Amino acid sequence: MTINKSVAYFNGDFIKVDDAVMPLEERGLQFGDSVYEVIRVYNGKPYTLIEHLQRLLISSESIMLASPNVMELEELVLQGIDKLQMQSGTIYLQITRGSASRNHEFPIDAHQNLMAIWKVDEGVISTPDQGVKLKSFPDERWKKCFIKSTCLLPNVLAKEKAKRKGCYEALLIRDAEIKECSAMNVFIVKDGVVKTPPADQSILNGITRQKVLSLASQNGLLTSETVLTIEDIEVADEIFITSTTKELIPVTQVDNFIIGNGKLGENFSLIHRLYKEDVIRECGAGTNKV
Amino acid sequence: MTINKSVAYFNGDFIKVDDAVMPLEERGLQFGDSVYEVIRVYNGKPYTLIEHLQRLLISSESIMLASPNVMELEELVLQGIDKLQMQSGTIYLQITRGSASRNHEFPIDAHQNLMAIWKVDEGVISTPDQGVKLKSFPDERWKKCFIKSTCLLPNVLAKEKAKRKGCYEALLIRDAEIKECSAMNVFIVKDGVVKTPPADQSILNGITRQKVLSLASQNGLLTSETVLTIEDIEVADEIFITSTTKELIPVTQVDNFIIGNGKLGENFSLIHRLYKEDVIRECGAGTNKV
Repeated sequence: MTINKSVAYFNGDFIKVDDAVMPLEERGLQFGDSVYEVIRVYNGKPYTLIEHLQRLLISSESIMLASPNVMELEELVLQGIDKLQMQSGTIYLQITRGSASRNHEFPIDAHQNLMAIWKVDEGVISTPDQGVKLKSFPDERWKKCFIKSTCLLPNVLAKEKAKRKGCYEALLIRDAEIKECSAMNVFIVKDGVVKTPPADQSILNGITRQKVLSLASQNGLLTSETVLTIEDIEVADEIFITSTTKELIPVTQVDNFIIGNGKLGENFSLIHRLYKEDVIRECGAGTNKV
Repeated sequence: MTINKSVAYFNGDFIKVDDAVMPLEERGLQFGDSVYEVIRVYNGKPYTLIEHLQRLLISSESIMLASPNVMELEELVLQGIDKLQMQSGTIYLQITRGSASRNHEFPIDAHQNLMAIWKVDEGVISTPDQGVKLKSFPDERWKKCFIKSTCLLPNVLAKEKAKRKGCYEALLIRDAEIKECSAMNVFIVKDGVVKTPPADQSILNGITRQKVLSLASQNGLLTSETVLTIEDIEVADEIFITSTTKELIPVTQVDNFIIGNGKLGENFSLIHRLYKEDVIRECGAGTNKV
């Protein structure tokens, strides 16, 4: 039996990912009038699903989009996993304000478009043997980055520029404050304290970010949500970045600064192990190579 | 014979506007990784077409998108006009970085998607008999608003909020400086000088904005591209806003300030007449009710 590696969903129907279903006059396409989530599956179970769906609610409400039904979305996510017999992979959910004749103000009679994409992958939680480099850039994004909207052009440009400089991610700096990467949150460890910028309106409050804070704290590490600057980079013992899909990745260089001794830090290794253990606790070890 | 009121184009084919042609994994839809233009047709001719296409080039280059071929786009625009026998209407052009598996960095093998929508309309250049109200809001957009990208969620939200306050447009204020409206540029007339914020990276340099500056100047009015604040609103003799589709619209109230004497200003009326005359000069009077 062949297992399909991906499947998509659009307004009630499961379809192939490459099938054309969107008309040109669509507010996600024409205005970025749209919010989304990405969820990771381990051992056939979506990890921190409810947290992702609750954030989707916050994003929706923040752009005055009628709230999605969390229970229905949960059911949908599970249906797709079942359909693919997915052990490991990602799920992309997107809600737009709908298809309507182009006009900035909200359309009166449009129905939201709900779409999703499930993709099976290799299923190995990252076990980094070396760190990555970051390149700092001015944060050019809008003022409400706590909303997970699809207006991601500034993020895309920053990520691409970082890549062209041989770096893994862009570190975004606004008004001299470190905010986050183009698609990952950032942590700095100094003198045993695990620090990260506060989750105000200027960053996306990552589900993995919240999990790291919680796991670190529960296991006796000191944590601090505090303003960080480039000076904190220069004296950092350890730096790491986090996201749902990329999990936890250690950073050994930012611009020209070598972090700590340029090797993986012990706090990173501890937190990374705690994260792996939490994934197994929540989703089971099963066939997953965690 | 029935004349179609609209037609669309997608990567080489003319199609119906409502036809589904976009797959879900499309960078315009998932990232706002896309630029656009809107062009107005009078008397069967696109007004300031080359200026719009040249701005599309600037937008494309600014997001590292391969430049569109201006001559081919010009030809395409004319084909659609011909197909609809369009006397008056609008043309929407959009270029995205293409369809590709979701990943922030640029896809290596994606081909840009080129789409366009032509819509016939009534063809009456605006002849306002009264002014509109604006509501001021903090400008929450990103830092490169000179790029005409489809990451328009902040614009959409500002426009909708203004509408819900009974206003025609949102006036966006950044760091105490007046920038522009959600989809229109703004002009203030004081002591006979026609003032508008400078076209730096923080505003879109409207084609109609440039035309107004040029027509005003050629006809003996003093113009100034200068920083403007709410204080300039309070003492303004006249205010008006401009865009390709909405043309020139007088403003008689901003928040609680009544502008001038609350009636249409003489400078507005003069510039509006000059604009009408320019449209006729460029496109002909023809059957258009200008």
